[in-house]
Amino acid sequence: MRFIVADWGTTRFRGYLIENETVLDQVSSDEGVSALQKGQHRDVFLRQCGRWLQAEPDAPVLLVGMVGSREGWVEAPYATCPAGPAEIARALVPVDLGEGRKGYIIPGLFCEPAPGAADVMRGEETLVLGAGIEDGLICSAGTHPKWILMRGGRIERFATYMTGEMYAILREHSMIGRPATEPEDPKGFDLGLEAAERNAGEARVGLLHLLFSARASVVSNRMHSSLLAPYLSGLLTGDEINGALAQFGRPDSVTILAAPERAELYVHALKRHGIKAEIKDTQQALIAGLARIVRQHALG
Amino acid sequence: MRFIVADWGTTRFRGYLIENETVLDQVSSDEGVSALQKGQHRDVFLRQCGRWLQAEPDAPVLLVGMVGSREGWVEAPYATCPAGPAEIARALVPVDLGEGRKGYIIPGLFCEPAPGAADVMRGEETLVLGAGIEDGLICSAGTHPKWILMRGGRIERFATYMTGEMYAILREHSMIGRPATEPEDPKGFDLGLEAAERNAGEARVGLLHLLFSARASVVSNRMHSSLLAPYLSGLLTGDEINGALAQFGRPDSVTILAAPERAELYVHALKRHGIKAEIKDTQQALIAGLARIVRQHALG
Repeated sequence: MRFIVADWGTTRFRGYLIENETVLDQVSSDEGVSALQKGQHRDVFLRQCGRWLQAEPDAPVLLVGMVGSREGWVEAPYATCPAGPAEIARALVPVDLGEGRKGYIIPGLFCEPAPGAADVMRGEETLVLGAGIEDGLICSAGTHPKWILMRGGRIERFATYMTGEMYAILREHSMIGRPATEPEDPKGFDLGLEAAERNAGEARVGLLHLLFSARASVVSNRMHSSLLAPYLSGLLTGDEINGALAQFGRPDSVTILAAPERAELYVHALKRHGIKAEIKDTQQALIAGLARIVRQHALG
Repeated sequence: MRFIVADWGTTRFRGYLIENETVLDQVSSDEGVSALQKGQHRDVFLRQCGRWLQAEPDAPVLLVGMVGSREGWVEAPYATCPAGPAEIARALVPVDLGEGRKGYIIPGLFCEPAPGAADVMRGEETLVLGAGIEDGLICSAGTHPKWILMRGGRIERFATYMTGEMYAILREHSMIGRPATEPEDPKGFDLGLEAAERNAGEARVGLLHLLFSARASVVSNRMHSSLLAPYLSGLLTGDEINGALAQFGRPDSVTILAAPERAELYVHALKRHGIKAEIKDTQQALIAGLARIVRQHALG
């Protein structure tokens, strides 16, 4: 089965022509959702992917990611966890591509991790459904890493951490990151993981304290400034993992969906907890997830 | 006894002529440490306070705050906790005011909250020594709130939290604060304190998750956008208090040194933990602390 996909995030547009789980052709541009105004989305899509629409008049068209957010093409209301391919396919939101053709926006997911609390995702639901995990814990680690509990092939619940964005704002906008120097000494990452252990269990001292303490270690000459940036990364990653293990229990293994360099840091950090980690390719997972949803949509 | 003081922070210069604990005269300007280059400090001090030096030829001169940091007039090495007026007076660092006159920079304090970990303060040590607490817990709440354990009239140890700065960068530079709208609904502060309780004890979910969850609550229409900013403030304050109570135990009461509006938020938050809080005036505490150090210096 051939289908056409736009993986349309905040900063990037990526189009794919797919047959089963093989990419036949692809395009990409910086026409992410944040670069566009209301009303521009159809034109961008037709310019990038119009030739596939004409060549494949029967191919279903799926759109995934922030394209379904309030700032996107059409807001696709979140589906609620637990959710698998069937629930997601039922909640697809159509958009008009012209000449009687429709595209379908994949809705994000909402979950209530505690009474009154909320968490959301847009895009990762598709990735995760393509990871081949029926039961288990997945970490999809981008700017806002998400830990996702799979049960019976559906997304049972999940928790998002602002780890990557926090690291960026601490480096760019905070007093905490200011003493950091380059070249970085990667040994700082492990020191940061160790520091995060002070924030686990009952003896927890608070992440806001550990962050200040990182700076204090440098200005009091207890830590070299070249260690600070990797230390902050390790501290934030370690605190994320502490929280995820507290929320989802302590599995034997975790599946990591992330760029290779970042994924290796999670493997390393989880090893300290005695947890194995298996890295899977994100693009492959995305396409497999899209294929599952498109098949389900065709059935429905 | 008359003495002359510069309370010289990152952004402000404040000069005082003091008799015992009464302010006889004062000046202030925006010539904070961050606005000055090396070599400019004496000129600024003489221009602001020179007339007091001439009128009071025998008055001791103390300088307190970031003026003793690496970016200040002269770096005053941190004294190490535990430290009281005697230890601090012994570690004063002289600077030359001309015509044979000297000023003395009050050193900051260093403490090691855990093996290999570090925390520092500059300025708060003086404030805290003037709070009139021999034994007990003090919270000095500015941009980087500090929780300080007093024992036998000395600063036993302390922990700093980047709460205020974190709030500012989340509002100004992060996706987390972007959906916040005004006018703010102050009820959000209590909702944030409640959320922080999910990060206390063994069930802790992680501050990085709770921060993302705040945004998720708004974009999924579970929380009104006018609640978001006070919610973030409550969440950060609550997490700070969780950490401080875990580090310093759970006292019957805490002394708060902070601007009145901020101090009231701490009183409110601590009440939820069944802890009484007494607010003390920060300027009065600073001057009392200076008086203690100046007396000790005169003795030595």
